[in-house]
Amino acid sequence: MTDTETLLTGLAARVQLLEDQLALMRIISAYGPAVDSGESAAVAGMWTEDGVYDVDTGCLRGHGEIEAMVQSKPHQSYIHAGSGHLVGPPHIDVDGDTAVATCHSQLVLHDQETRTYRVARITANRWEFARIDGEWKVTLRTNRILDGRAEAREILAAGVKN
Amino acid sequence: MTDTETLLTGLAARVQLLEDQLALMRIISAYGPAVDSGESAAVAGMWTEDGVYDVDTGCLRGHGEIEAMVQSKPHQSYIHAGSGHLVGPPHIDVDGDTAVATCHSQLVLHDQETRTYRVARITANRWEFARIDGEWKVTLRTNRILDGRAEAREILAAGVKN
Amino acid sequence: MTDTETLLTGLAARVQLLEDQLALMRIISAYGPAVDSGESAAVAGMWTEDGVYDVDTGCLRGHGEIEAMVQSKPHQSYIHAGSGHLVGPPHIDVDGDTAVATCHSQLVLHDQETRTYRVARITANRWEFARIDGEWKVTLRTNRILDGRAEAREILAAGVKN
Repeated sequence: MTDTETLLTGLAARVQLLEDQLALMRIISAYGPAVDSGESAAVAGMWTEDGVYDVDTGCLRGHGEIEAMVQSKPHQSYIHAGSGHLVGPPHIDVDGDTAVATCHSQLVLHDQETRTYRVARITANRWEFARIDGEWKVTLRTNRILDGRAEAREILAAGVKN
Repeated sequence: MTDTETLLTGLAARVQLLEDQLALMRIISAYGPAVDSGESAAVAGMWTEDGVYDVDTGCLRGHGEIEAMVQSKPHQSYIHAGSGHLVGPPHIDVDGDTAVATCHSQLVLHDQETRTYRVARITANRWEFARIDGEWKVTLRTNRILDGRAEAREILAAGVKN
Repeated sequence: MTDTETLLTGLAARVQLLEDQLALMRIISAYGPAVDSGESAAVAGMWTEDGVYDVDTGCLRGHGEIEAMVQSKPHQSYIHAGSGHLVGPPHIDVDGDTAVATCHSQLVLHDQETRTYRVARITANRWEFARIDGEWKVTLRTNRILDGRAEAREILAAGVKN
């Protein structure tokens, strides 16, 4: 390669890494809007077909189970009373065709009777991604509630340890 | 064009799109600091001269009305007691010289008497932007409170549907 | 330089600025996960060796004092009951080898007895960075609680004024 071609190739790799980071941020930032509006297909579509959403209360496996959670009576009652699944800025590590993002999320719920809001929970989030046919998809999201349990701290620690 | 020129042009377009996304994030991230410090000119300057801020309680049209809101007695009493207009990470779609960003925001207020904080509201945000003389400006921001009303869910859904 | 080389150099500078912004976001997004999991070395490592964390209650100077804060009894009791140091999306200004980021943070605490969460405080954050041996490090972080005090508003205003 000529010097110019070498420089161009190096620059293209740097641009790709920036694109990957912004693409991952963009996917994660869709979760709250999708889940709080009941767009179950948009929520499930963030995951691979057989992707897993592992929450404290159990594991949702694949698009069908994730969509069913969004369409469930408890979730629908949240969003019809007013809910905010607020997902914080993620800390992202890209490694070729896989990536990990670590962040907090916060669930704020509205009470229709008192017309007040409360923080219902805060949660440690670990998102694992794979690039499938050129598109990033969630393969596993693990959420643990920050109520003192060690598992939640371990999720946060794993994302920032060297 | 030579092959090198073609590659360079393609790369420049990708860099431009990344710059656009980061510029839009940067504007949105200024809103909270500007409004919670009473910097009314900085708040209004995010919008085009005739830009609109459409909130549940009415429409603010143009810099004058937006500045007046920041300088109003209710807003000033919020910020002098302690307030946080916390705007979450936006989900951004750039389309040439226009863009849309969707996110949640949360208003946390401090009570001087009890020295406690409360979540006063959570809100669905839709930001519409135009590139004017090379600079991104808000043309319309639509906010609807997440208290169960359908309009708020519709704002969130519109930002993430395919 | 040839035209191609000139274009390539200009593009490389733009890519560098994007990398800087994302690197700074990435550092800031590590704070919450690190401090809520008690990873004291990861927290301190965000700062330069003699970096300062200036909070309302006093100044922490250097890695030793920052690590000691994370390991302190009050902080450990927070994280073992469940805590979320939620740091919002930062508004970043890069100027060569230094940078400033301005944002809000929110502390949410879990109460083990009542199993409820409360917003314990919201805070104005100013992060000052220097590039040291090619790596961004915090030289000074100044936090002031948003309880009506002018200092907190001044921190937010300084980040967004032209």
